[in-house]
Amino acid sequence: MKFRTVSGILPSGFKASGLSAGIKRSGKPDLALFFSESPCVTAAMMTANAFKAAPLVVSAKHLAAAKTRALIANSGNANCMTGRRGLSDAQEMTACVARHLSVSKEEVLVASTGIIGKPLAIDKIKTAVPGLVSALSVTGMPSAAKAVMTTDTFAKTASLRAVIGGKTVTLCGVCKGAGMIAPRMKMATMLAFCFTDALIEKAALKEALAQAVDDSFNAVTIDNCMSTNDMVVVMANGRAGNRMIRKGTAEAVRFSRLLRQVSVCLAKMIVEDAEGATKFIEVRVAGAGTKASAKELAFGVANSNLFKCAMFGSDPNWGRIAAALGATDSRLKQEDLRIKLNGVYVFNNGKPVGVKGRGLLKGRNVVVDIVTGRGPASATVYTSDLSYGYVRINADYN
Amino acid sequence: MKFRTVSGILPSGFKASGLSAGIKRSGKPDLALFFSESPCVTAAMMTANAFKAAPLVVSAKHLAAAKTRALIANSGNANCMTGRRGLSDAQEMTACVARHLSVSKEEVLVASTGIIGKPLAIDKIKTAVPGLVSALSVTGMPSAAKAVMTTDTFAKTASLRAVIGGKTVTLCGVCKGAGMIAPRMKMATMLAFCFTDALIEKAALKEALAQAVDDSFNAVTIDNCMSTNDMVVVMANGRAGNRMIRKGTAEAVRFSRLLRQVSVCLAKMIVEDAEGATKFIEVRVAGAGTKASAKELAFGVANSNLFKCAMFGSDPNWGRIAAALGATDSRLKQEDLRIKLNGVYVFNNGKPVGVKGRGLLKGRNVVVDIVTGRGPASATVYTSDLSYGYVRINADYN
Repeated sequence: MKFRTVSGILPSGFKASGLSAGIKRSGKPDLALFFSESPCVTAAMMTANAFKAAPLVVSAKHLAAAKTRALIANSGNANCMTGRRGLSDAQEMTACVARHLSVSKEEVLVASTGIIGKPLAIDKIKTAVPGLVSALSVTGMPSAAKAVMTTDTFAKTASLRAVIGGKTVTLCGVCKGAGMIAPRMKMATMLAFCFTDALIEKAALKEALAQAVDDSFNAVTIDNCMSTNDMVVVMANGRAGNRMIRKGTAEAVRFSRLLRQVSVCLAKMIVEDAEGATKFIEVRVAGAGTKASAKELAFGVANSNLFKCAMFGSDPNWGRIAAALGATDSRLKQEDLRIKLNGVYVFNNGKPVGVKGRGLLKGRNVVVDIVTGRGPASATVYTSDLSYGYVRINADYN
Repeated sequence: MKFRTVSGILPSGFKASGLSAGIKRSGKPDLALFFSESPCVTAAMMTANAFKAAPLVVSAKHLAAAKTRALIANSGNANCMTGRRGLSDAQEMTACVARHLSVSKEEVLVASTGIIGKPLAIDKIKTAVPGLVSALSVTGMPSAAKAVMTTDTFAKTASLRAVIGGKTVTLCGVCKGAGMIAPRMKMATMLAFCFTDALIEKAALKEALAQAVDDSFNAVTIDNCMSTNDMVVVMANGRAGNRMIRKGTAEAVRFSRLLRQVSVCLAKMIVEDAEGATKFIEVRVAGAGTKASAKELAFGVANSNLFKCAMFGSDPNWGRIAAALGATDSRLKQEDLRIKLNGVYVFNNGKPVGVKGRGLLKGRNVVVDIVTGRGPASATVYTSDLSYGYVRINADYN
């Protein structure tokens, strides 16, 4: 199960563009714009971190004030912990886009990703905006997806279609990930933007987003480090011509599934492209009391540095899985615990099962199955290993 | 501040020994014994992990049943997640020592450290016990200290003396650490054994231990991975001839300070010798609402992989400190936050302070000072960086 870029088909009425504004020293693309021909009903979720970046503060205000027409996002600088200047820079980004698109600044959202605590090169951004606006195109998603990358090694988009309310609805998502990824708390996630031509009321869109995030972006961890800039946005412009999707209806359930599927696909790509990763690891917990406790146990394992290092070494050292589970929930019983690695029992019936050795984990994909015997609930979490590559990238980021 | 082995002077009436029983394939010492000529009042704290290793289960029973005469500890195998056989092996260890020392098995405690989920080489241990007993010596601490090491690179002991209740009291501690170190939860710690000739009642000893652990073993983290085998024991044989130290007295406070000082010294050695560590990092939080929240914030930073990688790279990337703080407490305010690295402000008055660059963190010691402006409480936590060495050791442990 290797995820790679799926060509991003933008839904009807959406355009995108991306270019290099010179924010990154490398000269790689660092500025993206997404635009809808008509106003969008928009739902968003943001990091629970106390030190929310300036663009999140500005976007939250704009979301409350107006429908959305555009979203500008830069990589290479998080515009976080940058004081008053950061706030005015984020406002200026939306105002500048608004001027060139002839919309109000409240109709523009802004997102940033990159290093924390450095002033934003706002003049470079302002200089680049006219070109960014004129480059807007229905085929612009690949350029935009590249421009939100930081340590990502491939651009991440996913598009899906489904018939909802009598019409074909398209949903296209784009995201970036790689590091500082542990968006499990409350409403947190990394940068992910979804665009749809579905006609949907705001309450239904918000509910669909919350459900989708729970099983996708809030079910991945790379390094247990929660970001200050996490933000997921879904914009719906209603151009598909479907009957209005209302909360609590069968159509809302269908849309919710569509959004969930795109979100899970994007979230898995983030783990696939985790900083330094050599493994894609699925930690499945079953037999838990509640879904929340199943997820907590799965995160307990997925965030264990010792487990992650063992995976890097293809070492079936399941004792570290047990230690992580026992540290997460002190009520677990050894007798009730079962652990499988890639389908092979390593602990069962209250005692170890002899395993063959490293061959079991040689491949890129690892599935850890855990049964705790405390109830009927289950959850799955996706993570990567902890490798020399992760240390190298993060010792030398600044 | 570089910690190294201090020659362990055992208090009056104590003996120790260590040797190789062949548990470790390397042939390095792996079995230690500590013995008191007279019965000891003993206090102990154990891991809060659900999957407590068999020796902890056996020791807890023995502690409740009798005074203590001896403690046997092996490295190379944790005897954890080993089912019923593990329990009977741990019992057999105490029974075998008891036979050769002519004491009851309830007077013997047992501790283990090493790999989880492998059967213990109990026959090798039983074969080695007679030699271990005959090797007991008042100068045996260095041998015993070596025998509890796993990935430790140096033996860790500390001895201190103080006049309490009219007599000179000696306290000698030994510990092992290196990895799977995050003993902050409830009553957790790694293997640490302290021996004193003080005459002290059990209630005073228990209180002194809880206080000492809070500021020492429960204030360190290497990898945020809580062990199944953590155990700290303090044995007091009363041979110093001091007036009985009773709970709530000035003597109890003095003894508490003595135990705290030895414990902090040992805990710092553990961090100094952390797996792969190239830095010794002190994270100090001041201006917090409570000591508990100050400690939680300090651990938030100390357990951030991104922060630890930045330290490995001597990179003053303080944004990762801010992100970790904000992830830990969502009520923090940017305006109130101050951060210093090795005495130099990097964030103050609600905005970044320009820093010179990497020279600031070139040395082995890093002090991070954080002020959050939420109250009068403070706490200090000790940690190491996350290096290639840590990954290498833990990808290749089994």
